[in-house]
Amino acid sequence: MMTIKLSHNSYGKSDVRLVKVTRNGQEHHMQELTVKVILSGNFSDTYLTGDNRAVLPTDTIKNTVYVLAKDHPIPSIEEFGVDLSRHFQERLANVDEVYVDIVETSWQRMVIAGKLHPYAFTGTNTEKNCCTITRTAAAVKIQSSIRDLLILKTSGSGFSQFLQDEYTTLKETDDRLLGTNLLVQWHYKQDNVNFAALRTQLRQILLEIFATHPSNSLQNTLYEMGKAALEKMPNLADIHLFMPNKHNLLVDFSPFHLENPNQIFMPIDEPFGMIEGRLEAE
Amino acid sequence: MMTIKLSHNSYGKSDVRLVKVTRNGQEHHMQELTVKVILSGNFSDTYLTGDNRAVLPTDTIKNTVYVLAKDHPIPSIEEFGVDLSRHFQERLANVDEVYVDIVETSWQRMVIAGKLHPYAFTGTNTEKNCCTITRTAAAVKIQSSIRDLLILKTSGSGFSQFLQDEYTTLKETDDRLLGTNLLVQWHYKQDNVNFAALRTQLRQILLEIFATHPSNSLQNTLYEMGKAALEKMPNLADIHLFMPNKHNLLVDFSPFHLENPNQIFMPIDEPFGMIEGRLEAE
Amino acid sequence: MMTIKLSHNSYGKSDVRLVKVTRNGQEHHMQELTVKVILSGNFSDTYLTGDNRAVLPTDTIKNTVYVLAKDHPIPSIEEFGVDLSRHFQERLANVDEVYVDIVETSWQRMVIAGKLHPYAFTGTNTEKNCCTITRTAAAVKIQSSIRDLLILKTSGSGFSQFLQDEYTTLKETDDRLLGTNLLVQWHYKQDNVNFAALRTQLRQILLEIFATHPSNSLQNTLYEMGKAALEKMPNLADIHLFMPNKHNLLVDFSPFHLENPNQIFMPIDEPFGMIEGRLEAE
Amino acid sequence: MMTIKLSHNSYGKSDVRLVKVTRNGQEHHMQELTVKVILSGNFSDTYLTGDNRAVLPTDTIKNTVYVLAKDHPIPSIEEFGVDLSRHFQERLANVDEVYVDIVETSWQRMVIAGKLHPYAFTGTNTEKNCCTITRTAAAVKIQSSIRDLLILKTSGSGFSQFLQDEYTTLKETDDRLLGTNLLVQWHYKQDNVNFAALRTQLRQILLEIFATHPSNSLQNTLYEMGKAALEKMPNLADIHLFMPNKHNLLVDFSPFHLENPNQIFMPIDEPFGMIEGRLEAE
Repeated sequence: MMTIKLSHNSYGKSDVRLVKVTRNGQEHHMQELTVKVILSGNFSDTYLTGDNRAVLPTDTIKNTVYVLAKDHPIPSIEEFGVDLSRHFQERLANVDEVYVDIVETSWQRMVIAGKLHPYAFTGTNTEKNCCTITRTAAAVKIQSSIRDLLILKTSGSGFSQFLQDEYTTLKETDDRLLGTNLLVQWHYKQDNVNFAALRTQLRQILLEIFATHPSNSLQNTLYEMGKAALEKMPNLADIHLFMPNKHNLLVDFSPFHLENPNQIFMPIDEPFGMIEGRLEAE
Repeated sequence: MMTIKLSHNSYGKSDVRLVKVTRNGQEHHMQELTVKVILSGNFSDTYLTGDNRAVLPTDTIKNTVYVLAKDHPIPSIEEFGVDLSRHFQERLANVDEVYVDIVETSWQRMVIAGKLHPYAFTGTNTEKNCCTITRTAAAVKIQSSIRDLLILKTSGSGFSQFLQDEYTTLKETDDRLLGTNLLVQWHYKQDNVNFAALRTQLRQILLEIFATHPSNSLQNTLYEMGKAALEKMPNLADIHLFMPNKHNLLVDFSPFHLENPNQIFMPIDEPFGMIEGRLEAE
Repeated sequence: MMTIKLSHNSYGKSDVRLVKVTRNGQEHHMQELTVKVILSGNFSDTYLTGDNRAVLPTDTIKNTVYVLAKDHPIPSIEEFGVDLSRHFQERLANVDEVYVDIVETSWQRMVIAGKLHPYAFTGTNTEKNCCTITRTAAAVKIQSSIRDLLILKTSGSGFSQFLQDEYTTLKETDDRLLGTNLLVQWHYKQDNVNFAALRTQLRQILLEIFATHPSNSLQNTLYEMGKAALEKMPNLADIHLFMPNKHNLLVDFSPFHLENPNQIFMPIDEPFGMIEGRLEAE
Repeated sequence: MMTIKLSHNSYGKSDVRLVKVTRNGQEHHMQELTVKVILSGNFSDTYLTGDNRAVLPTDTIKNTVYVLAKDHPIPSIEEFGVDLSRHFQERLANVDEVYVDIVETSWQRMVIAGKLHPYAFTGTNTEKNCCTITRTAAAVKIQSSIRDLLILKTSGSGFSQFLQDEYTTLKETDDRLLGTNLLVQWHYKQDNVNFAALRTQLRQILLEIFATHPSNSLQNTLYEMGKAALEKMPNLADIHLFMPNKHNLLVDFSPFHLENPNQIFMPIDEPFGMIEGRLEAE
């Protein structure tokens, strides 16, 4: 006779959105976070019999995020995530793992009459600072990341001498646009660091290598970016870069008997190349 | 001195979109697919030195998808994916793993004057049939899935006797709306099956249990859906269900001195509960 | 000296989402609506001086939508919209015009064991039934519409003998895919009609002409669709069709020395042709 | 007998995307535009009979955008749009009106080692500079606009003493978050202006008033922003502001016996208030 096994289960709340305003006299500080909390463990009763006695409602998880956000100074999303995960770990007997994902939406202080304004902000940046916390009784793992950092260079990039077969029509080039929507994830060797400062430093290293390294392939650029980060930041344990190749196709002007010396391009969203690599310091 | 290790790498093409029209006299058959192909293996030269001699361009991967789609009858996305993955596996010496992801967009034949029309279609369905193929020299793993199957029941669902703490405000209920945007993934024990027919059968089993099983929790419903599928389809090896709880909040009419006996709800996209479970037949 | 004039103003609430469940014994009926209400009139005090005494809060507009949805049988979105607009028109002295926009999300009853289920639904259809109501003291104007009706034919469409200039590279064809994401809007001559039945009739007429009329241009097909609707439905006053040309490009197989006799196409989202026409019965 | 009249028609190409790179020695300048061109006029032949002899294909419109972008210096999107519209107006006998819509995606030069980099850019800004050109034989009308400028202030905003009825539950407040995703459109009195410089000036005026004006209502803030722009920029003919009220709801902490003195908010996307006003200089 067949036996059915519940080999994996988890539950939680996603897309809990919050804005926290901290008042320092006239000067306000604002943070916008989107939080996910997922719990794994021994919750088989609710699955198998509908007995919910071990299930803290996802609505309560949401409330808890709001309450903890109130008291926490949130110096970094990583530190808030660590404390949030501890709350559920310590409280819930049936939980084996708490997973927290935090996305921070960027808000920048307006410059009015040449000065930073105390309480007015613009929020037009797509780039997001993120982290995930994976906590068990034995360990806490913190992964930091940046999402949706759109970068492009109009020089210093080629792609040639690649493998060819009968379906290859791509032409070799020593001058193309190179653009990507960077996702980068990393771990630290120790976790008592200044998360916000290191994040800023890492971002700038990645931009600098992207801009200045002569690219023979997107893979090549990815590797050099990761390598520079590991070399200059000794506390980095590893770095994982996801670099979709956001193509800009050179428009063919030959039907009009015109040249197009890398002037006019057609950006396309699809299809796109997807290049990925993880580097570790040993 | 620090050593840098490239501990993971992959590359490929995503979002290759194609429409295939097969003509059977006057009657046309159409399929719309979106394909991703990702290759992993020994490509460290391009990363470390910019030597691209082992790199088949992602543009060639795209071309290959089109060429292979032309000759392949595509009786199912799974069979097309298996053959597509074999092409790259057999051809490329440096590849350890080929990963193929196919999403099929639904098109339905129009009914005109009471009859199915031979070549006119509507495409308004969000639900997608999908599969992924993971192929190494040693093995081919086929995962089938359905994405974005939006289902809701207005009766037969409660949630009560759950764990409570000081942050719990959710009220117990024996009558609520239960809705989800189902993602379901599964594997077969053997792979020489009628993929399209089994997919249809599985979908109907899932709908039937969702509709008829009295729900004590979304977890409970999820489990019963998976269990019924495994019991009725002996070739299923496992089934993994992802069920976001798409909340419909009961509108509070008490400020207006009115009752709201489960009549008027406010659907919200966020936050949402996320319930997940994988069941295996043993 | 400069004078500043507030030459137009309006305010209201957008994206008020509601689900209404109507119970007929065991059989439930469900409707999901998204409602917008915009008020125009003499609200200059709040603009010029911040005096809000004439401003009913948009939050109250939202509450009102919920309360009126509770009591209204909603036989059609048009009838609900008319009554909703009357409420604000009659109540608010400063209002000159009430504009209501309603979008109905499609839910279909599941078929379980061969029968329509009394309370379980699927909601995977992108197509939307919509209407707008524009009410002044003098008149009520009802516009009905369908949005996002995706249709495609794989035969019976050509485009040739068009105007050419030195920038024309498009080839003439007598056999192409023709697809569009139809938006259609219409008015009735009288408004005491069976909105739901006429909507269904109109939709079927449009599909039939799209499928069967030999197309010399998308403009041509658009006109024939509108003409048939006006001819077969004497109560129609006008019909306005928006037909983006959702291109499916024939993949060029010549580099591979292969034919592509209208078999493999690449659908693209952008750029797209945009064809529009309004027809009136005189 | 019924007569059918084609009372309106237009056609064209939408979402023509282009990147233009201008090389000034080592320093590159890049612009990303998305262009729409719509033609209205006497095109009834293609609608009524499928005779396409007056129809320049939308594909040719696309090609023309690319060719004209190549030669045009594009000092502003407005000037490019004016010239683009002239091309079609002068060439096409049947055209009564040419409508051009241009959206410019923002790219900013990277700062590397403290200096602006000559050819590396970031593109993470959602805010867009836009314009539309409406050209007939008699006149050219230029409308400039900014889309998706997300702004928020955490102080200096209240809403009270508003109209109340039996469905009003909103509480009066003298301290709330005020945020909007600004769309602003304007016309100049004369069109031989420095479009780019005036756009920058206008944006800064709007931000300054948003930040510093004590708000009694979003309407009040909208009016003051428009008024300041008209007063400080004598060449402005009118300004039209669309300000969705992006609500941040104060989270209710009373169930937890906690205070929430404007610290923790829940941002919601829907429903939202929609406030609109157009101001003219007389």
